[in-house]
Amino acid sequence: MTFVFEDIDDVEMERRRSVVEPLTDAVRDLVDAVVRTEIADEDIPDVTTAVRAATERLRRRQSDGPYGVRYTRAGTGMPWGNAAVGVRNAIAPPMRVRSGADGLRWADVDLGAAYEGPPGLVHGGVCALLLDHILGEAAGADGTPSFTGTIALRFQRETRLGAVHLEARTDRHDGPKKFVTGILSDADGPSVVADAVFVIPRWARATPPQEAPQ
Amino acid sequence: MTFVFEDIDDVEMERRRSVVEPLTDAVRDLVDAVVRTEIADEDIPDVTTAVRAATERLRRRQSDGPYGVRYTRAGTGMPWGNAAVGVRNAIAPPMRVRSGADGLRWADVDLGAAYEGPPGLVHGGVCALLLDHILGEAAGADGTPSFTGTIALRFQRETRLGAVHLEARTDRHDGPKKFVTGILSDADGPSVVADAVFVIPRWARATPPQEAPQ
Repeated sequence: MTFVFEDIDDVEMERRRSVVEPLTDAVRDLVDAVVRTEIADEDIPDVTTAVRAATERLRRRQSDGPYGVRYTRAGTGMPWGNAAVGVRNAIAPPMRVRSGADGLRWADVDLGAAYEGPPGLVHGGVCALLLDHILGEAAGADGTPSFTGTIALRFQRETRLGAVHLEARTDRHDGPKKFVTGILSDADGPSVVADAVFVIPRWARATPPQEAPQ
Repeated sequence: MTFVFEDIDDVEMERRRSVVEPLTDAVRDLVDAVVRTEIADEDIPDVTTAVRAATERLRRRQSDGPYGVRYTRAGTGMPWGNAAVGVRNAIAPPMRVRSGADGLRWADVDLGAAYEGPPGLVHGGVCALLLDHILGEAAGADGTPSFTGTIALRFQRETRLGAVHLEARTDRHDGPKKFVTGILSDADGPSVVADAVFVIPRWARATPPQEAPQ
């Protein structure tokens, strides 16, 4: 697992973000439109050709593999390919994680047609994806790297598509383990509860780094 | 929660699938290209404009909300908007779930750059999404509808991007509860284990329907 440091400052990072984010947002909108379109079948192949042409232009120069997690000179993380929060990743809703007091991490996310499981409802696995991610952010709030050991999800009721709210925080530590809890709510209140154990890797236990990759 | 029956046969369903699937595949490829592109910043806005034009064409006629789960006259399910398996959903890898003996459900899925969490690794939440879905399919193998009550995931080690294999089956029943287990493996073997309890809804307990929506 490699972390890449780019020799750029945070102003340059924001400039790069401002270039790519409108493209990613446009692709998110396209994903939604493919799910919902009802145009005539004979008009679909033309759109397919146009999408392929856009892809071909992007692929004229590209990385060999995934984006990874890159860092600026100041140590600001750029997990731009991340499936939950990636600025370059149209699969990510995206979830924009905020910080509160005492290591709280929270996010408001709007889940459209592309996140459906049962009719009109959020796919249970999408709830799991978002909770896994925000619990990981809460586990990392103390600056010590850790990886998910176990996560248990209780689906108290269905979750409606639309606006959802997520919260997570670390409840307690026990040696190399962090116990983290979280909750996902829709417009009607809490719907999924998560409990996880995160484990600090051996290499990080002796002298916990303050600016460690997470 | 509503299920839509379309007055079409399975031949017509396959014809419709053959029209939309190349479009969805093209958008999946575009999602990957946005993560990985390294073309010059000044060339990005033109691509963004092209993507928006494609979306505009698809939106000329569209459903008001999500796709839902539709059924043919023969009762074949069309969960085409589904976030894990949807034929119309570019977020879905897609996972194509196969059936084996004794209610086994399995799938081989190729996870590219868009499913990344830590560098080079599958996002733990993506593992959770795919396991949640395939355990649900295994729970439904007996024809009785049920919903996820709880799911517990044990991350035994990291999961590498690339080819992954999933399996799930129902181990036992206890009243309205089904106990389902599953496993996710990458090229190096098993990496995530899942245990779930699915609950048969009250309305389905008296006379379990054989062709029930799941």
